[in-house]
Amino acid sequence: MTAILCVDIGGTQIRAAAYLPGNLQPLTSRRIPTHVAGEPVFERVLAGIEAAWPAQEDVAAISVAAPGPLDPASGLVFSTPNIKEWVNFPLGEKLAQRFERPVFVNNDANLAAVGEWRYGAGRGHRNLLYLTISTGIGGGVILEDRLVLGWRGLAAELGHITVLPNGPQCSCGQRGHLEAVASGPAIAAYVRAQLQAGVPSQLTLAQVTPQAIAEAARRGDALARQAYERAGRFLGQAIADFLHAFNPSVVVLGGGVSQSSDLFLDSLQATLMASVMNPIYVRDLLLTTAQLGDDAGLVGALAQAEVLLEHRQRPVSP
Amino acid sequence: MTAILCVDIGGTQIRAAAYLPGNLQPLTSRRIPTHVAGEPVFERVLAGIEAAWPAQEDVAAISVAAPGPLDPASGLVFSTPNIKEWVNFPLGEKLAQRFERPVFVNNDANLAAVGEWRYGAGRGHRNLLYLTISTGIGGGVILEDRLVLGWRGLAAELGHITVLPNGPQCSCGQRGHLEAVASGPAIAAYVRAQLQAGVPSQLTLAQVTPQAIAEAARRGDALARQAYERAGRFLGQAIADFLHAFNPSVVVLGGGVSQSSDLFLDSLQATLMASVMNPIYVRDLLLTTAQLGDDAGLVGALAQAEVLLEHRQRPVSP
Repeated sequence: MTAILCVDIGGTQIRAAAYLPGNLQPLTSRRIPTHVAGEPVFERVLAGIEAAWPAQEDVAAISVAAPGPLDPASGLVFSTPNIKEWVNFPLGEKLAQRFERPVFVNNDANLAAVGEWRYGAGRGHRNLLYLTISTGIGGGVILEDRLVLGWRGLAAELGHITVLPNGPQCSCGQRGHLEAVASGPAIAAYVRAQLQAGVPSQLTLAQVTPQAIAEAARRGDALARQAYERAGRFLGQAIADFLHAFNPSVVVLGGGVSQSSDLFLDSLQATLMASVMNPIYVRDLLLTTAQLGDDAGLVGALAQAEVLLEHRQRPVSP
Repeated sequence: MTAILCVDIGGTQIRAAAYLPGNLQPLTSRRIPTHVAGEPVFERVLAGIEAAWPAQEDVAAISVAAPGPLDPASGLVFSTPNIKEWVNFPLGEKLAQRFERPVFVNNDANLAAVGEWRYGAGRGHRNLLYLTISTGIGGGVILEDRLVLGWRGLAAELGHITVLPNGPQCSCGQRGHLEAVASGPAIAAYVRAQLQAGVPSQLTLAQVTPQAIAEAARRGDALARQAYERAGRFLGQAIADFLHAFNPSVVVLGGGVSQSSDLFLDSLQATLMASVMNPIYVRDLLLTTAQLGDDAGLVGALAQAEVLLEHRQRPVSP
């Protein structure tokens, strides 16, 4: 049997693991820092792959979860905030040449969607919407068992729909996007602004992180509770938009902030119900949290390779 | 050769025409009122089909553009504002039983998208977004040459995304949807409210229709111009959302209001550019108006039947 070598390239660490198809217990698994002084990140990726290369099995394909935006068809990374040296970087092509194996590349949120659909919270569903709420907000959509990619593979950038016209500035530079009001940093920025305006709270300006805010909210702090409820309202409004756009049967919430879903799920659902054009969009809809946790990228990469190998879809070939 | 019998069920008229595959010159064509006192609308549909049934050719399938929301898989119309007697109405099944032919049913905006993709402004594109701006705002999306349907066939209801939180009430009952601020009636409602607030204009309250406003705008009336520009800003904001969601290579604007696109295209494009997360979404993007006009429903129904017959997809069978 041949293995699939999966890589998850994150902003702080690179993870690599070899799997046999259909088996989530990795044959090998390595984790190394992404950034080391004087070494290009691509060399780090090569080192991670080599360290996880299985001794006993051949490798059928390499499947990579990379930060986007990128073109999955060519494996070209257009640009990415955390790896500044990658601008129009032909990641897929370079890996295919180096290892002489077919290479599949996609962005982390798309692959987390594929992972949750095949192995996680969305098993058995053919139409899935995945939203990761973390430092940023990303999305992945599966329709009729196929990942939605669009023209250049840039579909499902769901953190960048406008939910508050002329609202706070987003990481992308524009204003009022979902990511600018409901990501972890956006929740923290809101609390910081309220503290500076003199709103009373157990929190102090020195300790405003999404985790600290969540803890304060659970202790009953009004500002902290309000900050998560406010994020929930924007998420509910946005998810109603996504239901109208994609009509999924399951919505999976992943990413660090979703671990505090107890603090925003009520306001999310209330706004969702107040925004859908027809209750049929939410009837029997499953709204749930992700199951794959930190492994979402690796398992998503595995699931992607399995699907594409099954369908004999064209990888970036050596 | 066998014909395809196409029907477009509108709020005021039913159109029926028989086509040979690949030929937009109909063999037969009929147009009758949808509503006649004392007669169920379904009887009118039957009359339209019978009147357009070709004498010389057999009919391979019946393809219907119907007002939604509806389930294309079963041909079930959930409910529709202009035909109040149709609530959970099994349109596909009843037509299949009556005529003993396979029947395809879809909503008018989805079929207009298919029509523009196969025969109109979107030919040659594999990823298309169609937006009809008229009494309401509807959408249809094609990704990788397939119509986006979603779980219950309710995807691409693009008029019902929230663009102005707590904004004007929408026809669906919710607030601030695109349809509530950028449809023909929404443009007229805005002008009416401004007139009532004393804003000077050549228009009077008695003559506030989208057409009259467009004419006044072309004569230089400031309020009329502003009304279309305002709609354009909301359309630009929404289209940026749709680019992030679907990443199409062409956006086609149809419906009556799009015939005044000269009055809102500048503000639409400015807001679009101020909302996209990355210019790559608009690079080489074709933004254009629909080509099929009044025939969009019929031609879309023809295109749908051709595609589904080619792919041997399951119709609602007799």
